[in-house]
Amino acid sequence: MSTEATDMAFIRSAAEKIVPAAKAAQMAAEERLNQLTKPPGSLGRLEALAVQLAGAMGTPELPGRLRKAVVVMAADHGVCEEGVSAFPQQVTRQMVANFLNGGAAINVLARQAGADVVCVDMGVKGPEIVHEKLLSRRVREGGTANLARGPAMTREEAVRAIRAGMDVANDLSMKGYNVLATGEMGIGNTTASSALLAALTGLDAEEVVGRGTGIGDEGLRLKRETVARALELNRPDPQDPVDALAKVGGLEIAGLAGLVVGAASMGIPVVIDGFISSVAALAACRIAEGVKPYLIPSHLSSERGHKRTLEELGLAPMLQLEMRLGEGTGAALAFPLIDAACGILREMATFDSAGVSKG
Amino acid sequence: MSTEATDMAFIRSAAEKIVPAAKAAQMAAEERLNQLTKPPGSLGRLEALAVQLAGAMGTPELPGRLRKAVVVMAADHGVCEEGVSAFPQQVTRQMVANFLNGGAAINVLARQAGADVVCVDMGVKGPEIVHEKLLSRRVREGGTANLARGPAMTREEAVRAIRAGMDVANDLSMKGYNVLATGEMGIGNTTASSALLAALTGLDAEEVVGRGTGIGDEGLRLKRETVARALELNRPDPQDPVDALAKVGGLEIAGLAGLVVGAASMGIPVVIDGFISSVAALAACRIAEGVKPYLIPSHLSSERGHKRTLEELGLAPMLQLEMRLGEGTGAALAFPLIDAACGILREMATFDSAGVSKG
Repeated sequence: MSTEATDMAFIRSAAEKIVPAAKAAQMAAEERLNQLTKPPGSLGRLEALAVQLAGAMGTPELPGRLRKAVVVMAADHGVCEEGVSAFPQQVTRQMVANFLNGGAAINVLARQAGADVVCVDMGVKGPEIVHEKLLSRRVREGGTANLARGPAMTREEAVRAIRAGMDVANDLSMKGYNVLATGEMGIGNTTASSALLAALTGLDAEEVVGRGTGIGDEGLRLKRETVARALELNRPDPQDPVDALAKVGGLEIAGLAGLVVGAASMGIPVVIDGFISSVAALAACRIAEGVKPYLIPSHLSSERGHKRTLEELGLAPMLQLEMRLGEGTGAALAFPLIDAACGILREMATFDSAGVSKG
Repeated sequence: MSTEATDMAFIRSAAEKIVPAAKAAQMAAEERLNQLTKPPGSLGRLEALAVQLAGAMGTPELPGRLRKAVVVMAADHGVCEEGVSAFPQQVTRQMVANFLNGGAAINVLARQAGADVVCVDMGVKGPEIVHEKLLSRRVREGGTANLARGPAMTREEAVRAIRAGMDVANDLSMKGYNVLATGEMGIGNTTASSALLAALTGLDAEEVVGRGTGIGDEGLRLKRETVARALELNRPDPQDPVDALAKVGGLEIAGLAGLVVGAASMGIPVVIDGFISSVAALAACRIAEGVKPYLIPSHLSSERGHKRTLEELGLAPMLQLEMRLGEGTGAALAFPLIDAACGILREMATFDSAGVSKG
């Protein structure tokens, strides 16, 4: 078999290995929640989250202290040459250095949530970045090709990027992490994500394209045209997520899709950040529908396509902060909610133990 | 002067002492936020929160570690005899014991947020509760009278309850707390809060009454009638918040209104929990309009009247968790967002320091 065929077989086998949410664990969690000193259901989505975690982890005995990592995948995008971003392309590389030095927003927010930041180079333009904290998984030198002029990458590269993401999930599981979050950095990646969302759902450019890091009206028009052109030129197959990722996706987006599939195959829940991460999660769902019970929503981004993507995923955001930064920042802010859900289930008194009358 | 007149003079003087948000500190915070390595404004409400905190605290140098307390005020409600709650009245007292023993939801969530729970007895039915952790501020033995049959309390008692809340804020400020959150416990208090909201806004019973801890359709009809009757019978003056608190409020609600006024008069921001807390904050705004810059919203509760109350306050919730527990649980979940806002302002690298190109 070719490497591509081997990797694809590996991806399919992991996808098939994903187990559904454990019903018995969920029921045990629900039963316990109903004995706790509060009106039944009054903690709303915190209770639903506790039940989901029990189902994903296969036990109502949720860990006292979660080991959390935000995986920030970085890559460059050839489509930048169309002028679709408010920032120059070298910012991808500069921000990777910022992540490694601990100065970016995601570093601050992860630190406060007790989570580690794991930065992965999936294909940042320029020479290889060597740093003890960086995972180098460069699938394609120089980043993707310009998706408005041809496919962003080959199918083989897309498969390798997905596989690389799965391997990162596996490595982190081995290191003891039991909950992951998605993050990304890549100037131009809202353009690729918009095109991918359109490819996977049939939505048109008008509906999926937003202002990204902050382009003006003229930039927005250009970005819509670019996405429309990419779709027309590349004709990604809506039934084939790997084809769509290859033709109009990105290396970090394919990597995140792989991370989600890999995490789910090991029973690890994944918190999904904003627009780009959510489109990657949607691609993961198309690769392996079984990932759904492992997806935890975080915030509603103010990027135009995010709401539609979450609807497509069947996820309702918990945080409404009008953020649009990416990096995993919204997902990091959801970590305390996960800690809260675990804490409720583990630490609250029951009606019996506290001597409180039931309604 | 009578005690009532003295207390009222004290309240008025504190209300007048509230300083507006510090414009210079806000501008300095904004300027710093725009130098940080992120597209301007891309952290959305987290940035707005940082600016608000700078304005409230009078400095852009936000504290590295906030000292946080959730103040849970408890009291009983005579209106319970109308059968408006899904839980028996003794649950108020039982839950106070649960708070003191650390087994309630608010204990778990405050602990995880690094906040202390300060429980205040504002008028719990039965003998005085003696516990080293409890602040005893019993304004009226046995809780309020049945507001559906007459005023909930006298004007003098309402003034004393407000004053007691202000004193709690003062004590906590002296102990070094620099951010507070509101919480409450009182079987029957969604009924009182609904009546108070209607009294302060002119909304009718249909719009302000919800299911509280979980009453059925028949209970809801009865609760609406009870609120409508309370308003008709007591005719609270919409221009006089103290009159409204006395006639259709509650001891813990008046106490929380006082807590908000007191905190604002000392430059301490207050995170507002769900429906009851928000109605208390609305009463505080009517007593002293200057409190507004000190109010920080948390979640949108699923209790019917909450959305309207937040609109009236001009606050937009950050968390959408379909919670309806009270105790300060939603506010405690907002503490990490406040920590995040402070962290961003203090710890992020600037474009210059990180060598990142501007857009």
